[in-house]
Amino acid sequence: MTTPSLTPTERTTLHRRPARGSYDVATVHAILDEALICHVGFSVDGQPYVLPTTHARIGDQLYIHGAVGGRFLKSVKGGIPVCVTVTLIDALVLARSAFHHSMNYRSVVILGVATEVTDPLHKRRAFEALIEHVVPGRSAQVRGANEQELKATTVLSLPILEASAKIRTGQPIDDEADYAVQCWAGLVPVSVAAGKPIADPKLSPGIALPPEVASYKRA
Amino acid sequence: MTTPSLTPTERTTLHRRPARGSYDVATVHAILDEALICHVGFSVDGQPYVLPTTHARIGDQLYIHGAVGGRFLKSVKGGIPVCVTVTLIDALVLARSAFHHSMNYRSVVILGVATEVTDPLHKRRAFEALIEHVVPGRSAQVRGANEQELKATTVLSLPILEASAKIRTGQPIDDEADYAVQCWAGLVPVSVAAGKPIADPKLSPGIALPPEVASYKRA
Repeated sequence: MTTPSLTPTERTTLHRRPARGSYDVATVHAILDEALICHVGFSVDGQPYVLPTTHARIGDQLYIHGAVGGRFLKSVKGGIPVCVTVTLIDALVLARSAFHHSMNYRSVVILGVATEVTDPLHKRRAFEALIEHVVPGRSAQVRGANEQELKATTVLSLPILEASAKIRTGQPIDDEADYAVQCWAGLVPVSVAAGKPIADPKLSPGIALPPEVASYKRA
Repeated sequence: MTTPSLTPTERTTLHRRPARGSYDVATVHAILDEALICHVGFSVDGQPYVLPTTHARIGDQLYIHGAVGGRFLKSVKGGIPVCVTVTLIDALVLARSAFHHSMNYRSVVILGVATEVTDPLHKRRAFEALIEHVVPGRSAQVRGANEQELKATTVLSLPILEASAKIRTGQPIDDEADYAVQCWAGLVPVSVAAGKPIADPKLSPGIALPPEVASYKRA
């Protein structure tokens, strides 16, 4: 169940540039859904680690997964605090002064304790969501995970509760005097672009490229 | 000074899929240079935080920066352990089985203690590198940072010493029996694409779009 707005905590309150912060559930969810991957932070013996991985959202739960036995999941599944961050870069912000260069971005930070999903049906649903997150419609076309594969995979669930979004939009904001600097200023939009799909050379003849792959895009 | 290969430590040794790991200095540096942003992990009171930020490399040092007074830099500049991770996604890897779906990627993880750059010349050089990392050639065109702006910025340096790269390339590897599944399989290349630059409406008339902005690309 989602609520319209998350309650900021001391740890998710933006002290710098609070105007860039958002606790709106729909905003947080949309950023999580658009981002192809996330970065997961956890600590082992006081050393933080940050690893990239795919994720999926079902309602107000975020799911991540990995191979049983990996350092990351062995560390995390006991129930230690994690931070999951996703970042979408929308534009380079080129100002007239070095100092006011920036980027337009949309990011989400989720803090919490990730717990292992052990219920078989719940685990299978999360596993399918992880495929659907990357290519919607894909899980119905492929050979689904069997018991052995599900057993070899650890799936973790993190509530999207102590979370916030941070968003910058718009043109550079230069110091008044710098608008006279004779230098181009503006935005360079950046996005994740998909190229022409490359069929596996082992593909059986006569299999057509499905439309969701042919015209793949995020957002 | 760079050496041809980094020495793996227990913390940077890839136990799973060691064939994907690389300790080659040129490989690690190239990934860091291509990535537009990094994700920095640090812990405060046992809670990990992961924040996106821009970075730059000079030789075997990685630089990150931020506003004096931000939670992140206040925590980190005292010299606490950090993890800096960059990730480039090259392709979606669409297999015939859900389980063998993957991504082609190039990532780097650096562990270490970040320290504040206080020497003014060193700090200015790092500051310029942070601009050059985003748009090469840009720092010569803009109004450079003044003393007050440099004072308002914390620059941190992290040696690229305890670090490793992880790389996946190539087509999906399905189980032998699954090659008979009648489902498209292959790669969807993905990359960071730049759109048409959008000039600041406040741009003075007669300023041309510089070539490095007009034909912006990473890598």
